[in-house]
Amino acid sequence: MSRLTHTDEAGAARMVDVSAKDESVREAVARGRVVMRAETLALISQNKAEKGDVLAAARLAGIMAAKRTAELIPLCHPLPLSAVAVELALGDEAVEITATVRTTGRTGVEMEALTAVSIAALTIYDMVKAVDRGMRIEAVRVVRKSGGKSGDFAQD
Amino acid sequence: MSRLTHTDEAGAARMVDVSAKDESVREAVARGRVVMRAETLALISQNKAEKGDVLAAARLAGIMAAKRTAELIPLCHPLPLSAVAVELALGDEAVEITATVRTTGRTGVEMEALTAVSIAALTIYDMVKAVDRGMRIEAVRVVRKSGGKSGDFAQD
Amino acid sequence: MSRLTHTDEAGAARMVDVSAKDESVREAVARGRVVMRAETLALISQNKAEKGDVLAAARLAGIMAAKRTAELIPLCHPLPLSAVAVELALGDEAVEITATVRTTGRTGVEMEALTAVSIAALTIYDMVKAVDRGMRIEAVRVVRKSGGKSGDFAQD
Amino acid sequence: MSRLTHTDEAGAARMVDVSAKDESVREAVARGRVVMRAETLALISQNKAEKGDVLAAARLAGIMAAKRTAELIPLCHPLPLSAVAVELALGDEAVEITATVRTTGRTGVEMEALTAVSIAALTIYDMVKAVDRGMRIEAVRVVRKSGGKSGDFAQD
Amino acid sequence: MSRLTHTDEAGAARMVDVSAKDESVREAVARGRVVMRAETLALISQNKAEKGDVLAAARLAGIMAAKRTAELIPLCHPLPLSAVAVELALGDEAVEITATVRTTGRTGVEMEALTAVSIAALTIYDMVKAVDRGMRIEAVRVVRKSGGKSGDFAQD
Amino acid sequence: MSRLTHTDEAGAARMVDVSAKDESVREAVARGRVVMRAETLALISQNKAEKGDVLAAARLAGIMAAKRTAELIPLCHPLPLSAVAVELALGDEAVEITATVRTTGRTGVEMEALTAVSIAALTIYDMVKAVDRGMRIEAVRVVRKSGGKSGDFAQD
Repeated sequence: MSRLTHTDEAGAARMVDVSAKDESVREAVARGRVVMRAETLALISQNKAEKGDVLAAARLAGIMAAKRTAELIPLCHPLPLSAVAVELALGDEAVEITATVRTTGRTGVEMEALTAVSIAALTIYDMVKAVDRGMRIEAVRVVRKSGGKSGDFAQD
Repeated sequence: MSRLTHTDEAGAARMVDVSAKDESVREAVARGRVVMRAETLALISQNKAEKGDVLAAARLAGIMAAKRTAELIPLCHPLPLSAVAVELALGDEAVEITATVRTTGRTGVEMEALTAVSIAALTIYDMVKAVDRGMRIEAVRVVRKSGGKSGDFAQD
Repeated sequence: MSRLTHTDEAGAARMVDVSAKDESVREAVARGRVVMRAETLALISQNKAEKGDVLAAARLAGIMAAKRTAELIPLCHPLPLSAVAVELALGDEAVEITATVRTTGRTGVEMEALTAVSIAALTIYDMVKAVDRGMRIEAVRVVRKSGGKSGDFAQD
Repeated sequence: MSRLTHTDEAGAARMVDVSAKDESVREAVARGRVVMRAETLALISQNKAEKGDVLAAARLAGIMAAKRTAELIPLCHPLPLSAVAVELALGDEAVEITATVRTTGRTGVEMEALTAVSIAALTIYDMVKAVDRGMRIEAVRVVRKSGGKSGDFAQD
Repeated sequence: MSRLTHTDEAGAARMVDVSAKDESVREAVARGRVVMRAETLALISQNKAEKGDVLAAARLAGIMAAKRTAELIPLCHPLPLSAVAVELALGDEAVEITATVRTTGRTGVEMEALTAVSIAALTIYDMVKAVDRGMRIEAVRVVRKSGGKSGDFAQD
Repeated sequence: MSRLTHTDEAGAARMVDVSAKDESVREAVARGRVVMRAETLALISQNKAEKGDVLAAARLAGIMAAKRTAELIPLCHPLPLSAVAVELALGDEAVEITATVRTTGRTGVEMEALTAVSIAALTIYDMVKAVDRGMRIEAVRVVRKSGGKSGDFAQD
């Protein structure tokens, strides 16, 4: 098992020091999906959900949440995001969510991309939960990361 | 497909009016998991993650996020939560997260429980991502709901 | 000039005590408009603004801001809003904004309705400012208020 | 009508990418006014409003709101503001508000200046609404902007 | 040593369940002081601090912070505050701060009163730190509490 | 008494302009303590407080609050913090709190360090207040500061 060099011996939480890192352009892409019944997907595609336009709301909620990641995740560094996009696609059994986040900063933006996906997913859930109680949020993960010293990364 | 009686004809988003509903005790339980490598789970159980005590941080982040649900999810009603608990269990391939939320209010607290699970999951992710880039957040869903007019509900 | 009975002699700011007031259903409606060029209105109605769907974003931003009024306006009381709606209409020279807010609480919701209108207006401004630098937000005011002891109120 | 080069074909909202822009000093000045009865203005100038010192509260609320612009306006970029000032002047029929915001960043600060003006105006409204129900917020606009590639700009 | 009946055996943090408690009027008064040099106090009393009106800013910052207590203190319950007042007095060697908070709710408001005192103290510190680096915040404590089942309480 | 060169003649509050300052690495260390009964300290060291793990919660709450300093303290500049650590030590009559904050920015981070100490102290207070009503937060002060033009500084 990897031994972490910066570990506080007592295991106390702290924000890792990034002041020695260089500022560089960093990007992360995260994905996830909200699995639901076909009828619920139809409701969304026809924009007939009780609370209104589901996809527009999810997109905006995801973007806004990305900007507040450092408030929500205790040890995240605040970062000046230079771009956030949330894309939504209706599949056969799920709404597929992709979030892309970019910054020029001293640490990466995976958490921002994952937070955008998670809050977009919760917003979709909220807007159609009155008609579908069995929804599940699945497969929230980072699919691509670039910039920074730890090297680029990609997975499905 | 169910026709939603309160649908704004144009599909515009709005916060559903709950002023005619009675205040009652309402509870929701949500669950989810962060799937990761066995080595990463071992790191957490030995409290050796670089950023510190993973489970304590995830628990608190989940509780704090539940209180901010109405800020994050655009059409959620602000609710005076009377109790929030986040439980974490280390399984064979995942950290299992359970959040329980209670209120005395005019609408349910599923979204608060789901938000607690999601942010607890993201916090776990953040704290061990330096050693495991393949983690996934899976199966975030409501497992129990009680109180309110729509009746009780339970699923796995 | 009306002498205010509860005035702190020294003029120091404080949140007025509402603990002796009864909880009742209270509603307020506020209005305002963003005056702009006809070409900019056309851009919005065709959903061609650079930043995307202007009306959906303004609606959601207004609703979300209403919920945060007590954070923004120093002496506002936090209130559990039971409904918020933001309606937008394209006129000849302006986007007309109407916000309706309802609560069951100890004080009125004019400030919440006005905040919803103001932030919806700023969101519209933000989304089309790249093509129209001369926009103005005008006539933000309360047009109707009901509930509470001070009596109902209406104006244009 | 100007065709916007970066438009998402489907009109979906997103935060415009500013990562290729240079950091530079940027400034914006916005203005607006709260129109009210002469008696209400006298109350403010004598610091006799029920909720206390109106001008000090409005100034601070405006400054604090400028710092939270990116939380309120969905597609605004978070920016490290280097200066914010809110000036208030009592006219014959209105409190005149001027906000000046400066940053060293990759995008302008009009929205921050407009947000400062709007929240300062709402704070004034809140503090004297008990004696004047007919107030209106008028003429909220950018009067000067400098820095950045789009060139300087000034209007009344 | 008192054994706490509701203790989670494993010591995990959680928000104590208050749903069985009755709503009642509850009040708390907290106090504290910012100890500083006589010259610094003179600067404040003459309103000559570089950043402007120190007492007005501290009062408002304290009131606004009281409303956000549940966001800052992880296990605090969100409460609909019905009144907040922050009083400041210039002593011989310190600014004395008193905060009074009232709610009609299911749990007490000591934390809200203490938060108001602490943030008011920090605001004073911030506004005069350019001329006095030796300031200290001292004696932040609850001096009175009433309402609720645990009985009234008072101390110096 | 020092005459402050940048004073607004009328004493109106404003955020001091730092745009002409250089970005540099800046660090501040603040300290404070929560004085309590020996029995209460024992409760904390044995992790038997009703609300759970006191030290982990205080550490995280302090770190999270440091990131929100500019929201709480009206005239603070928002800063991209590069590191925050909160250390807690159990003394004979108090929990001793030390917060260290680092940034690469245009202004210092004393307020962030002091805010971390204050909110960590309030969190400790909150978690054990059920068994000790006489606690006091004492001696919150800056003990070291480095970086920036005003020179380094240290005190006890």
